Amino acid sequence: MPETPANTDSASALDVLLPWDGLEDRHGPWPSNVRVHVWDGTTPEDELPPHVLQSTGLWVMPYAVPGVERLLPRMPALRAVQSLSAGVEKLLPVLPEGAALHNGRGLHDASTAEHALGLILAAQRDLPRWAANQREDLWEPHFTRSLADCRVAVIGYGSIGAALERRLLACEAQVVRVARRARPEEDVHAVSDLLELLPDVDVAVLVLPENPSTEGLLGEAELAALPDGALVVNVGRGRTLDTRALLPELRAGRLRAALDVTDPEPLPAGHPLWQCPGALITPHVAGGSAAFRPRAERLIVEQVRRYAAGEPLLNAFPRP
Amino acid sequence: MPETPANTDSASALDVLLPWDGLEDRHGPWPSNVRVHVWDGTTPEDELPPHVLQSTGLWVMPYAVPGVERLLPRMPALRAVQSLSAGVEKLLPVLPEGAALHNGRGLHDASTAEHALGLILAAQRDLPRWAANQREDLWEPHFTRSLADCRVAVIGYGSIGAALERRLLACEAQVVRVARRARPEEDVHAVSDLLELLPDVDVAVLVLPENPSTEGLLGEAELAALPDGALVVNVGRGRTLDTRALLPELRAGRLRAALDVTDPEPLPAGHPLWQCPGALITPHVAGGSAAFRPRAERLIVEQVRRYAAGEPLLNAFPRP
Repeated sequence: MPETPANTDSASALDVLLPWDGLEDRHGPWPSNVRVHVWDGTTPEDELPPHVLQSTGLWVMPYAVPGVERLLPRMPALRAVQSLSAGVEKLLPVLPEGAALHNGRGLHDASTAEHALGLILAAQRDLPRWAANQREDLWEPHFTRSLADCRVAVIGYGSIGAALERRLLACEAQVVRVARRARPEEDVHAVSDLLELLPDVDVAVLVLPENPSTEGLLGEAELAALPDGALVVNVGRGRTLDTRALLPELRAGRLRAALDVTDPEPLPAGHPLWQCPGALITPHVAGGSAAFRPRAERLIVEQVRRYAAGEPLLNAFPRP
Repeated sequence: MPETPANTDSASALDVLLPWDGLEDRHGPWPSNVRVHVWDGTTPEDELPPHVLQSTGLWVMPYAVPGVERLLPRMPALRAVQSLSAGVEKLLPVLPEGAALHNGRGLHDASTAEHALGLILAAQRDLPRWAANQREDLWEPHFTRSLADCRVAVIGYGSIGAALERRLLACEAQVVRVARRARPEEDVHAVSDLLELLPDVDVAVLVLPENPSTEGLLGEAELAALPDGALVVNVGRGRTLDTRALLPELRAGRLRAALDVTDPEPLPAGHPLWQCPGALITPHVAGGSAAFRPRAERLIVEQVRRYAAGEPLLNAFPRP
């Protein structure tokens, strides 16, 4: 396990445990009062020396490694826990007293917004059709839809929605912002106004978390309110879209869909969505791209700097 | 054939011949001294009354209808010819004396840039793979590349390149501008510097016209200069990329390609590019999307307004 060269006074140094090695090669040296340890969550935890567990004050948890939170009760010196996920609710019950929780808010925005844009462009510009024709050596051009000039409802307008909006505006589309509550000063409409908004949009993008208030939020009535030919995109959570209401709209050729998340998920073989006309499906990969790592590294470096300087860390997640 | 209601003095009215009907519904009434005739190029030209051919001063030619230029010699009153294509060289020999030529520069920028972006995102985010898995009911996620943070060389930096650049910057990519000649004040590099630039780019996009200086511009040496895993995109003209040099790079899995134009074109059945690993092919459809029509209408309305007011028309294409 690599440690930073100790020009630090071992007694007064602040111990931090990070998931990745080599960040200082890309981001410059660590603060001199910090001692860095590394554990990526894939090797057995008993390779972590007991003194590291004893002394770690800031732990940046390995990303998307199930179960690593089992170490929390064994880290008595913890003052801050940084998760690289946006959703950290499940850590609250096991969080040691005296440790603050920080989440990965924003780290997945670029990746998720980019994938949503890719799905929209693929659907508007008929990429699945061209890919199918390519398999048959078939050169058969036709005129397509475009994204330019479309009205796109971003339903769940938060930081991912804002990242998507910047991309959509550059593509000469118009954006209709929708969130749980109206924020008139930001031109954000309330989801309760969806039935009035949807008849005027060409594309409806769901970027919603899953909770009791969002389940089935885009259901039969909302889908029926969309104009013929509209595209439904989901990069949030599968259950926010009513699959049973969507299927007949797709089969009738009235609506189209591009879904990175589904209900059920994973989508089992034989489910009718798979081979439904006008459906494009990707397996929950919007957040999982190369865009994540550099953004996560920048957050880690900044958090370590703040921790070393005694400044408040970013992305605090409040205890209830 | 619809004409504008004649509150115009027939003798002094300016006759214009347009390819589409109904523009005044979306853009407001025509200038009062203009008389509008419509011919979309798909009905026999003998349905055009001889007096229209005799009197038309501004002709907006039907878009992408081969051979309509045969009418030019029968239009003695022509003062301006508006093509909706960007490339109008072939009209010069048949243009009546006294008529100015205007091209469709810019009308295809949004559509072409949007398709280029769609190809890049599809390749970076593995959309062809997800589409193939969908055909087999297969939910098998993996981590992908992204566009964010990539360095993208836009080779042939003109108005389409600038439209692509706006989209790429919104996607958090970096752009390396390349054109025939360096324009240091705009940070544009010369194509003669390509071999030095290419080792540092992740994506190389060709947006070049076809002429003797661009043929095979991205050839064996340039392709070899690209780093492993780089993506080659062509939305310009097929012959600017050396297909024979590209094939072994794709077969070796060293480079990837997303091509809207090819050499030969159309790509014949059985050509090795069709089934080459890492190749995504669309059949020259970048410019042909719904983004074209509203932009073309706005240009037509403005040109008619200028013509009626005696002002210089936009997009003049110089006679040699």
